[in-house]
Amino acid sequence: MAKVSFDNKIMFTYEAKAFPGVNKVAELVREDIFLVTGFRAGEYSKGSKCKNLVIFGTVDKSDYLDDLDRRGLIKLERIRGKWEVYSFQIIDNPMEGVDHALIIAGSDKRGTIYGLFHLSELLGVSPLVNWNHCFPKKRKNVTLTDEVNFISKEPSVKYRGFFINDEWPAFGNWATEHFGGINASCYEHIFELLLRLKGNYLWPAMWRSNFSMDGPGLESARLADEYGVVMSTSHHEPCMRSGEEYSLLRGEDSIYGDDWSFLNNREGITRFWRDGLVRNKAFENVITLGMRGERDSRLLGTDKGLKENIDLLRDVLKTQNELIKEIVDEDLDKVPRQMVLFTEVEEFFYGDDKTKGLMDDPELEGVTLMLSDNNCGYTRTLPDERMRSHKGGYGMYYHMDMHGGPYSYQWIGGTYLPRVWEQMTSAYEFGVRDIWVVNVGDVGTQEFGLSYFLDLAYDIERWGGEDPAVTIEYTDRWVEQQFGGMMPLSCRNRVKKVIWDYTDLCEKRKHEIMNAHVYHPLHFGEAQRILDTSEDIIKECASLRKKIEEKDLSAFISLLYYPACGTANLMKMWILAGRNELFAGQNRIEANEIAALVDKCVQEDANLIDEYESVDSGFYKGFGKSEHIGFVNWNDEDDRFPVRHLVYGANSPRMLVSRKDDEHYMTGLEWCDRPQTWKDMLRPDVCSIEFDLINASTKPYRFVIRTGCKWMMFDRYEGEVKVRERIRLSVDKSSLTEKVVGSFSVESIGYAKAEITVETAPITAVGCLSKDKAGAFLESDGIICMEAGNFSRREDTKGCGFKVLSPYGRSGSAVKVFPVTADFYKAKERPLVEYRFLTEAEGEFELCFYLAPTTPTIFKPEHYLGFGLNDGEVQLVNTVWDTERPFFLSPQWEQEAKDSVKKVTATVNCPEGENVLRFYGVSPAIVLERIVLVRKGISLPESYLGPLESYRIQATS
Amino acid sequence: MAKVSFDNKIMFTYEAKAFPGVNKVAELVREDIFLVTGFRAGEYSKGSKCKNLVIFGTVDKSDYLDDLDRRGLIKLERIRGKWEVYSFQIIDNPMEGVDHALIIAGSDKRGTIYGLFHLSELLGVSPLVNWNHCFPKKRKNVTLTDEVNFISKEPSVKYRGFFINDEWPAFGNWATEHFGGINASCYEHIFELLLRLKGNYLWPAMWRSNFSMDGPGLESARLADEYGVVMSTSHHEPCMRSGEEYSLLRGEDSIYGDDWSFLNNREGITRFWRDGLVRNKAFENVITLGMRGERDSRLLGTDKGLKENIDLLRDVLKTQNELIKEIVDEDLDKVPRQMVLFTEVEEFFYGDDKTKGLMDDPELEGVTLMLSDNNCGYTRTLPDERMRSHKGGYGMYYHMDMHGGPYSYQWIGGTYLPRVWEQMTSAYEFGVRDIWVVNVGDVGTQEFGLSYFLDLAYDIERWGGEDPAVTIEYTDRWVEQQFGGMMPLSCRNRVKKVIWDYTDLCEKRKHEIMNAHVYHPLHFGEAQRILDTSEDIIKECASLRKKIEEKDLSAFISLLYYPACGTANLMKMWILAGRNELFAGQNRIEANEIAALVDKCVQEDANLIDEYESVDSGFYKGFGKSEHIGFVNWNDEDDRFPVRHLVYGANSPRMLVSRKDDEHYMTGLEWCDRPQTWKDMLRPDVCSIEFDLINASTKPYRFVIRTGCKWMMFDRYEGEVKVRERIRLSVDKSSLTEKVVGSFSVESIGYAKAEITVETAPITAVGCLSKDKAGAFLESDGIICMEAGNFSRREDTKGCGFKVLSPYGRSGSAVKVFPVTADFYKAKERPLVEYRFLTEAEGEFELCFYLAPTTPTIFKPEHYLGFGLNDGEVQLVNTVWDTERPFFLSPQWEQEAKDSVKKVTATVNCPEGENVLRFYGVSPAIVLERIVLVRKGISLPESYLGPLESYRIQATS
Repeated sequence: MAKVSFDNKIMFTYEAKAFPGVNKVAELVREDIFLVTGFRAGEYSKGSKCKNLVIFGTVDKSDYLDDLDRRGLIKLERIRGKWEVYSFQIIDNPMEGVDHALIIAGSDKRGTIYGLFHLSELLGVSPLVNWNHCFPKKRKNVTLTDEVNFISKEPSVKYRGFFINDEWPAFGNWATEHFGGINASCYEHIFELLLRLKGNYLWPAMWRSNFSMDGPGLESARLADEYGVVMSTSHHEPCMRSGEEYSLLRGEDSIYGDDWSFLNNREGITRFWRDGLVRNKAFENVITLGMRGERDSRLLGTDKGLKENIDLLRDVLKTQNELIKEIVDEDLDKVPRQMVLFTEVEEFFYGDDKTKGLMDDPELEGVTLMLSDNNCGYTRTLPDERMRSHKGGYGMYYHMDMHGGPYSYQWIGGTYLPRVWEQMTSAYEFGVRDIWVVNVGDVGTQEFGLSYFLDLAYDIERWGGEDPAVTIEYTDRWVEQQFGGMMPLSCRNRVKKVIWDYTDLCEKRKHEIMNAHVYHPLHFGEAQRILDTSEDIIKECASLRKKIEEKDLSAFISLLYYPACGTANLMKMWILAGRNELFAGQNRIEANEIAALVDKCVQEDANLIDEYESVDSGFYKGFGKSEHIGFVNWNDEDDRFPVRHLVYGANSPRMLVSRKDDEHYMTGLEWCDRPQTWKDMLRPDVCSIEFDLINASTKPYRFVIRTGCKWMMFDRYEGEVKVRERIRLSVDKSSLTEKVVGSFSVESIGYAKAEITVETAPITAVGCLSKDKAGAFLESDGIICMEAGNFSRREDTKGCGFKVLSPYGRSGSAVKVFPVTADFYKAKERPLVEYRFLTEAEGEFELCFYLAPTTPTIFKPEHYLGFGLNDGEVQLVNTVWDTERPFFLSPQWEQEAKDSVKKVTATVNCPEGENVLRFYGVSPAIVLERIVLVRKGISLPESYLGPLESYRIQATS
Repeated sequence: MAKVSFDNKIMFTYEAKAFPGVNKVAELVREDIFLVTGFRAGEYSKGSKCKNLVIFGTVDKSDYLDDLDRRGLIKLERIRGKWEVYSFQIIDNPMEGVDHALIIAGSDKRGTIYGLFHLSELLGVSPLVNWNHCFPKKRKNVTLTDEVNFISKEPSVKYRGFFINDEWPAFGNWATEHFGGINASCYEHIFELLLRLKGNYLWPAMWRSNFSMDGPGLESARLADEYGVVMSTSHHEPCMRSGEEYSLLRGEDSIYGDDWSFLNNREGITRFWRDGLVRNKAFENVITLGMRGERDSRLLGTDKGLKENIDLLRDVLKTQNELIKEIVDEDLDKVPRQMVLFTEVEEFFYGDDKTKGLMDDPELEGVTLMLSDNNCGYTRTLPDERMRSHKGGYGMYYHMDMHGGPYSYQWIGGTYLPRVWEQMTSAYEFGVRDIWVVNVGDVGTQEFGLSYFLDLAYDIERWGGEDPAVTIEYTDRWVEQQFGGMMPLSCRNRVKKVIWDYTDLCEKRKHEIMNAHVYHPLHFGEAQRILDTSEDIIKECASLRKKIEEKDLSAFISLLYYPACGTANLMKMWILAGRNELFAGQNRIEANEIAALVDKCVQEDANLIDEYESVDSGFYKGFGKSEHIGFVNWNDEDDRFPVRHLVYGANSPRMLVSRKDDEHYMTGLEWCDRPQTWKDMLRPDVCSIEFDLINASTKPYRFVIRTGCKWMMFDRYEGEVKVRERIRLSVDKSSLTEKVVGSFSVESIGYAKAEITVETAPITAVGCLSKDKAGAFLESDGIICMEAGNFSRREDTKGCGFKVLSPYGRSGSAVKVFPVTADFYKAKERPLVEYRFLTEAEGEFELCFYLAPTTPTIFKPEHYLGFGLNDGEVQLVNTVWDTERPFFLSPQWEQEAKDSVKKVTATVNCPEGENVLRFYGVSPAIVLERIVLVRKGISLPESYLGPLESYRIQATS
């Protein structure tokens, strides 16, 4: 078995004819080896003796490889001409004087680079080794055998990269602090990060930066090319010139004129583009075509019609293509070009009934059409079957960071992988395979989501597919990669849970738009669950942190502690703020204690940022700077920290009695109290109720609980209440033979006495627990809530059918039809899932489907779901509210993107007893998470996530 | 000229045959004289020599009087047989050895007593001398001459008194503290107070008290009779037994049975009544007839129909009358009896279309029918012309304190005299002249309102009439009476203003139902005006207090300082709480300073009570005990102190620019700011606008104001803002020749820049300022607001016409038709007042009449106003919302009583230019305060009191 040992004798070949960028990367890999083994590899001189050798090179750029190929030891044919492929082989005695060798051969520059970094990964070095000082585990006697030999495949997506965007204050400050600006020194780190993550493509910072001017000069562009990084520019920056360049160069005496208008200043603008192409033509680029107004605005004012815009844009494209032919290459097919269908450009592309859009326009032939997401991680239009044949293919501009509508999220990256999995895998299926670029804002804290995005783009077979559980595997692998060197497996498993927990918090609601009124402080325990999760995260992180060596703190804090605790502390702060407000409104004296806790969270937020920015001698200084608390506009204008509410207690002890998840309370006072009946325990699986004895005064009271019902048991019958005491009422249901109604009293001795009625029933009292009802959900208090995954039956159609997605979405799971491109709107047969539930009486219900906040895949505002109740016909419902305007930028888009849910309601009439609800596959990109039915006349308690799932009859009962 | 000097030789006659109560009162008057002169009157022995003598007695109860009468020196004929009349005469040499004498002769016991107290008053002694230690001014050489001789008239109302009600915790604690209980020692002080205030009638405490059992025993009742106080019992306590007596005496073995039901326990209940009548028959009483359920509840459950209730009640009345005939007097006409038409009893009296009520029932012949107010000082049904002939007449049960719906007000008496004037004078005109009783709750702090009520009942000609300005006179007199001894006139004038101010605050909104959301914190400056008034009161009281001698603190604090400052501090607290909440919601850092001020007010509330309860060695201890902050129910259950809201400043200086009365603001930030245009100065009388530069951060900012408009002047153009700076923008309108529009900017240097548009016009720009438009109101910003008193023209009808009431109501004045009993519903001609206003353009307006919250005078829910616009017909509008139920206890009753306003709206279409709105007299008890028109599409800023009065074209312009 051939092998290579990374001992103190290990050497690297070097060849002058190699790509300089390849040699630079080899230096990085040598440094990686040193981190693992403690031995720095030497430089091999041709012909000398060597025990262990690493030979690396690119097809047609390496004498070593040519020689080995000639001698049949490697087969360059297997990689030659391929895109970013490498072979990785261990051979004994490859040549005279060399005992063992690892041979890394790339099909091209980046193939070789990926091969080199593959070595680092095999040695346990994280791609984030230099970006986050994520040090590998030190190892002795490191040996690789030929078991690792393989030839890589071509990446799934051709261009894979990210966009550094809206880079102030965070990225800008970081770059200035460490490199004196957003210059080539800064970009060298970005290029390394990109390549180690298997990316190859970049949209550089452009808010107040000019990539091709600030290097200084072209230095950044030159360096990118050296490293094999393909540069492009963002959606509104044509011809390799950054958005700000025109502002810098324009003027009355400027050769470019003083008007960013192709109508009024055609000559100046054309010259501006020409000079950009001339400047950057030597480098590997994807050239952006098209034109928008200044600063992300419309090309022409809103007073101009669609046709005028399209005609102008066509003229622009023609001009740009002619410039490219003249300056870059006569053969346009050889020049990678893109056009981004962002915001209003989408409309210009699709046109409308009267005006043909740019689709199929000859000027776009061979141009990659970049589609976009809804700014919040949900793709918008996707190519239909006919469109997929477009020469030039499609790309996707995706967001993990946003500065703009419907709201900005820029502070901490909290990307929830299952969403990226679902959306980008689906986009790939729709034919979006040529460019994937993700807006990662300031880069810092986006490492986790970015890693997955680029890995998915590199290998969709491995990380895509039809089961989001693959993201659990990915998370496990990522944690091993980053934290394997600093903590034992038991800790790493805790880290995995923390990552899932904090990204799940972000998936439910983003930091910036979290506030005191998102989650109801009490209803359905939703706020408590968020609080528990947040406190668990904080506790776990604090506990893990104690075990981390000083040298590893940089990676630990930047990749876990700060994003997780920052998120958890912020969520906790707002949950407490909401509770503080509600409790203050009820005069609960506990409100004051909670106000103090809110204050602690506010201080902790600053502490966490400070810690992140000072760890590792300020390695991340700048990255924590984004405003992130209490946005009331799409941006941080007028944002505000939580308000704290302070109360005075009543003048004498004042008891409030309240079920723990209920905002209503009894006072037990004589005249104005509202009686309560607790029916919770009618639900078969509920055998206890927790309730609080609350003090609305600073003066304590003694309480006593009394009941004449033998079946009621309390965990305490008397005591003192200073602030709040939680009591549990339990019933041994096995002792019951029929439904019972009883009451108990809680007396605040000397002040008040509340009398509460309780209803309960034995489990067998549910009259319909026969075996054939198994799987049906029971109405309770007028509500039926079913998780989408808990259907009773599934019916597929011609290879199409629903699958359960888990983990996924706000409630953890969902169902979706596969294959994702299938459209059943006009089909006669549709796949379906079937839900069964039992009502207590005939009646009208409001039926509400909770769906993932996806957008229509077609430009028309049509997005259908279908359902049918019992023997009823299929009802097709267009989930789009306003069909007179594009979905994107509509109020529905805004609300759904903020709340991470699409709710579609209908009124249905249900007979008493068993009902069957069918949910059909209709339009693509419909993902069902939950179904909630509420009986007419019942008011569903206000909440963000909705009710708890109803009781489901067990198969065994 | 005959005279009597109150020197050290002054003596009082005493006669054994006189009423003992009269002699007791003479003792009180001797003590009063001592307080004034320093000389205590001696006791005159018949036949001895005496320089100055006071002879007092009652017709047929005095040998002195008989002798003087025989000798023609006095004429008892002029008073004999009259009700509570006395003659007051100074005569020289009335008899052998006596030089000068004052002869006080009463027609009856109370006539004599009132005569004696009249002497005290003449000497400058307040009726509150012993109740509030309100000491008279010390005088030397006090001499009265026969210029004061006169014969009093019979009081306007026969029985005049008050009701001590809901006496815990305040009155009960006070009585227990000072007398060991609500017993005869306690009542002796009450009787004295009542008699000094010219009352004669009392409903005793009955919440946990039994007047005829707790004396001890009958002692209180006996003492009342001795003093000439006519005892009665409240509305639901028949046959001289207090409400609690039955609870004490009932039981399974009780002779009275164990069921307060005339249906089930006729015998026991009848015996209970019989024993009450037997027990109290010896005393002067007004016996309550009728029956209600226990504790103010309905007689029969709500499941029983009207007829069943009425039949039962008729049976009860018959039984009671028979008992009275048997026990008290065979001639029922000689027995004063009353029945109170409280709450549901009113319905039993009036009946409905199907069921005849108790009206005209023979059992009620000779019984005084007690009507009631709406619990908040507005009378309900009043006798129509036919009813006025009822034998037995009518009484009124009125409230200055309430424990019950629509809300309780029990803390500090804040009776606003013009309301009592308007309502009780009107009731008198409607024939309510036999009994007036006012619920004064705990008595303490009710002295001012109670004094007026009893003085009005005693002499309606003096204190009633058709002009509420008489209440100004009354207040002046009252202040002279109470404070004349302790401060100079200049101070007393300040006291008068304070009294008007604090009772006006209470008239607008009562203490208990004041909260942070009553007045809008900014709009129309209403909260600021309340705050200014409150702070003025507090300042004035503090300043006055410094001048008060220790001995006078008791009266000063109890009659002025505590009620005025208590009220002012509470109103201030809530205004600040509302402002704190609004400002916190806008992140104004000033919110935190305001929160601290709220806290100061909360502490001050406790301090004020403590001061009141400890002054004069605890003379008022107990009277401050009522809960009074933040009621959320009709009673104090679940009441709460204000919530304080604390904010964190934004991370960097943040400017907000806001007009001082506007809740909207500009941030001057780039993306999300909402532009403002200020049109205030288009109004002819507005030449300046104040606005605030606010900081929403703890970090100060520098500002600079810039404008290109020469006509704009600012009182500052630059400076620093730490918390808030107020800037004034002025325009010299005389320099303008036409309407102008301009703008200015406020820059928070380095952070933001707000650009504000301003419109203004020269005064002459109002195109219609010709002389004939004088008196018309101008539309401004879509709003026209006219005070009712500012009509342009009045038209009377057959001696009926509108008069202006001032002072009156929430805005200070109103108009009402006199005579008050006139009803024009069916009349062809109606009195009217006419308002003129100019609109800027033709359009639809919402017309809203702000009326006093009066109730219909008839039982039917009908209460009409009439209006007509321009040439339009008279529109008759029933101001009652729900005509299917009695007005009393309806939601409208509750809302109007809380808000102290009745709002009646209509939609009208106004042509451009001049409009004439006529308001007609229709139903009685309609009192118009303001008229507000709001143009359709304009949203009237939320407020409690409504907009400021519009500009009115001056006659001289």
